[in-house]
Amino acid sequence: MSLVVQKYGGSSVADAASVKRVAHRIVEYRKAGHDVVVVVSAMGDSTDDLIDLAQEVSPVPPARELDMLLTAGERISMAVLAMAIANLGYEAQSFTGSQAGVITDESFGKARIIDVTPGRIRSALDDGNVAIVAGFQGVSQTTKNITTLGRGGSDTTAVALAAALGADVCEIYSDVDGVFTADPRIVPSARKIDSISYEEMLEMAASGAKILMLRCVEYARRYRVPVHVRSSFSQLQGTWVTDSPIPAEFRTTSQETEESMEQAIISGVAHDRSEAKLTIVGVPDVPGKAAEIFKTVADQEIDIDMIVQNISTRDPGRTDISFTLPMDDGAKAIEALEAIKETVGFDHLQYDDQIGKLSVIGAGMRSHPGVTARLFEALSKAHINIDMISTSEIRISVVTHVDLLDDAVRAAHAAYGLDSEETQAVVYGGTGR
Amino acid sequence: MSLVVQKYGGSSVADAASVKRVAHRIVEYRKAGHDVVVVVSAMGDSTDDLIDLAQEVSPVPPARELDMLLTAGERISMAVLAMAIANLGYEAQSFTGSQAGVITDESFGKARIIDVTPGRIRSALDDGNVAIVAGFQGVSQTTKNITTLGRGGSDTTAVALAAALGADVCEIYSDVDGVFTADPRIVPSARKIDSISYEEMLEMAASGAKILMLRCVEYARRYRVPVHVRSSFSQLQGTWVTDSPIPAEFRTTSQETEESMEQAIISGVAHDRSEAKLTIVGVPDVPGKAAEIFKTVADQEIDIDMIVQNISTRDPGRTDISFTLPMDDGAKAIEALEAIKETVGFDHLQYDDQIGKLSVIGAGMRSHPGVTARLFEALSKAHINIDMISTSEIRISVVTHVDLLDDAVRAAHAAYGLDSEETQAVVYGGTGR
Repeated sequence: MSLVVQKYGGSSVADAASVKRVAHRIVEYRKAGHDVVVVVSAMGDSTDDLIDLAQEVSPVPPARELDMLLTAGERISMAVLAMAIANLGYEAQSFTGSQAGVITDESFGKARIIDVTPGRIRSALDDGNVAIVAGFQGVSQTTKNITTLGRGGSDTTAVALAAALGADVCEIYSDVDGVFTADPRIVPSARKIDSISYEEMLEMAASGAKILMLRCVEYARRYRVPVHVRSSFSQLQGTWVTDSPIPAEFRTTSQETEESMEQAIISGVAHDRSEAKLTIVGVPDVPGKAAEIFKTVADQEIDIDMIVQNISTRDPGRTDISFTLPMDDGAKAIEALEAIKETVGFDHLQYDDQIGKLSVIGAGMRSHPGVTARLFEALSKAHINIDMISTSEIRISVVTHVDLLDDAVRAAHAAYGLDSEETQAVVYGGTGR
Repeated sequence: MSLVVQKYGGSSVADAASVKRVAHRIVEYRKAGHDVVVVVSAMGDSTDDLIDLAQEVSPVPPARELDMLLTAGERISMAVLAMAIANLGYEAQSFTGSQAGVITDESFGKARIIDVTPGRIRSALDDGNVAIVAGFQGVSQTTKNITTLGRGGSDTTAVALAAALGADVCEIYSDVDGVFTADPRIVPSARKIDSISYEEMLEMAASGAKILMLRCVEYARRYRVPVHVRSSFSQLQGTWVTDSPIPAEFRTTSQETEESMEQAIISGVAHDRSEAKLTIVGVPDVPGKAAEIFKTVADQEIDIDMIVQNISTRDPGRTDISFTLPMDDGAKAIEALEAIKETVGFDHLQYDDQIGKLSVIGAGMRSHPGVTARLFEALSKAHINIDMISTSEIRISVVTHVDLLDDAVRAAHAAYGLDSEETQAVVYGGTGR
């Protein structure tokens, strides 16, 4: 008998009819003899409705109370799902994050999981129940206040519970069929990836693929939880995120065949439109200046991504430093850097939010030289100018003008032979939280 | 400095505007130097919406899950109210029933409070916060499951917290100005009662007055909590439920004057349309038969109210036994009694749901003979036939045909001189939960 943790996003439990459909899927797993723990998001747009309600009474609601408010959403969906399962003749009990033992720090709105003590979940399973757990929420270790985990938090809840319970697989259900070689809205010939390593999925997530949040993948890798990303609207196999073979009882015939084939060099092409580029022009070329700049940015808790430093062509004693950062943090970064303009002695700032980032990811890169050259050749043929470049062992990222990004994604996808013969009808969307 | 516990019903926090209005009222108490604990119901009709949602997925939802679902309602209202108070510059923290230490038994949907351990509430107050507590909910002592207290539960939460914290007053806010001498929808000349004893209020509640639930008044009497029933839509004094003088700092000038006046013999007239009458015809007049009948009814957990036993005029060896019971329990009682028809040896059952109960309540009754006679005289003059009679030390109740009930209430109200010169514009409604 296997233990399966399943996570259903808001679109999978948007209304009573969807909840019943999900209940049927869960009961099929029980009939097949599996123990099942279900992590559930709030129904449809109900979280947005709660945020709107909060805004009506306070422009800046206290973080503790906002978390208390938002956790009502999963409380509703989990209880309703438990009722729907009971209505099919199977036992089900719902548990809040706190009851499920999801212990976090005290950072309201973006709490981190410190520990998972799922004693009540294990008892519920032992008693023959399906255990339904509220995603996205926990309880702080020190003050026992209710916390939320922030964007993608329900996925992290599911993976963390799967790790703590030693589950055989963690299934992440959404309205998307799996992880694709590129966003099918941009590349209609993109293919669903059958299996991808944690490392590659981490790079995909960090490069803008929204199907799984970075923290969730980090958690899965650390505890070696096999994750199966799939759609709740079909019975199709999705994408397995794992470094091991797919567990036999969850494997389909086609997957056994494909596993014997040679691994692709490149797994996928990701893109990101959410970043901006900030250039500090005319920084005196003396030691310590870059450190001063990046410490200032880090103090604002801004995550910077790519960094480029060039000798200034106009003034040989000075350099220009560029970096990319989340567009939402642009104003904060500019304000902080303007404040140290005199002490650092730079000339001025340039801010560009019309950029796009393209990333090519593949573990096969390590052993195949020429991968980078092929990208540049393809972009050059498509008349796409490259603004910044950065690489890791298994990733090449380039920054282009945002208007050229879609062309760049298509060119790269074709250059590495990722195009399938048939086009995808599926829409590649976010997973909510 | 005083400690005030305030309870706001669903109509007082129906939408964002109402929540803000309530927040202002709470802040006024803080400005006056009081510590404030607020117990809040779910916003407007949101509990009904949740029940509808449950019905959509399951005709008979499991009780544990229904309680889990319904408690989401107060979670929303309490967090939003805390935000609205914070927006006015005062500190506020919200707490679930569980966090507030409301410990109950395991009877989902109608749990009873076993203990209140409000350590976190006291800490929040000591730190200068307004403490907002979810009404209507608690946590079971044995299994740590979430429970709800059933109808009127938020009032009971408020009184129980007031008792545990040693509050100076427990204010119950609704959309009604207080307790009236009769339902103003039936008797437009009914007057607001300024002060009423626990005992009288208990009899009023037991006799159908919906302003406070019986359990809440019982709790208040046991722990001697002064309760002030009033409207959140005005600044008017409402009705004090207490056996002691009204605390000086909450007393108005008019009340000091009125207290010196002579107490009325009759405090009010209550009515109840929710009962039915069941008659067991032809019960053999031998010892033990009545016991058998009432044990059967009690085993169904049906609360019976008035009981009348008469020698059958048709058959001297047999008696007819009639009792009143909640209309909702009628079918259950009939089924249970039909099952013992042979063993008891009665003839047949008669069921009448076209009855109304009128009750006249007043502590002054004890020392004033002739009170009962005056009621019968008044009803006789109004041509109202009396079907059953029962009395307590401070109450007389009669059952009439339901169509005559309103006339009976008006006749009784006039007979005891309760009519005021001006008619009330207010609508006398339920308090929700």
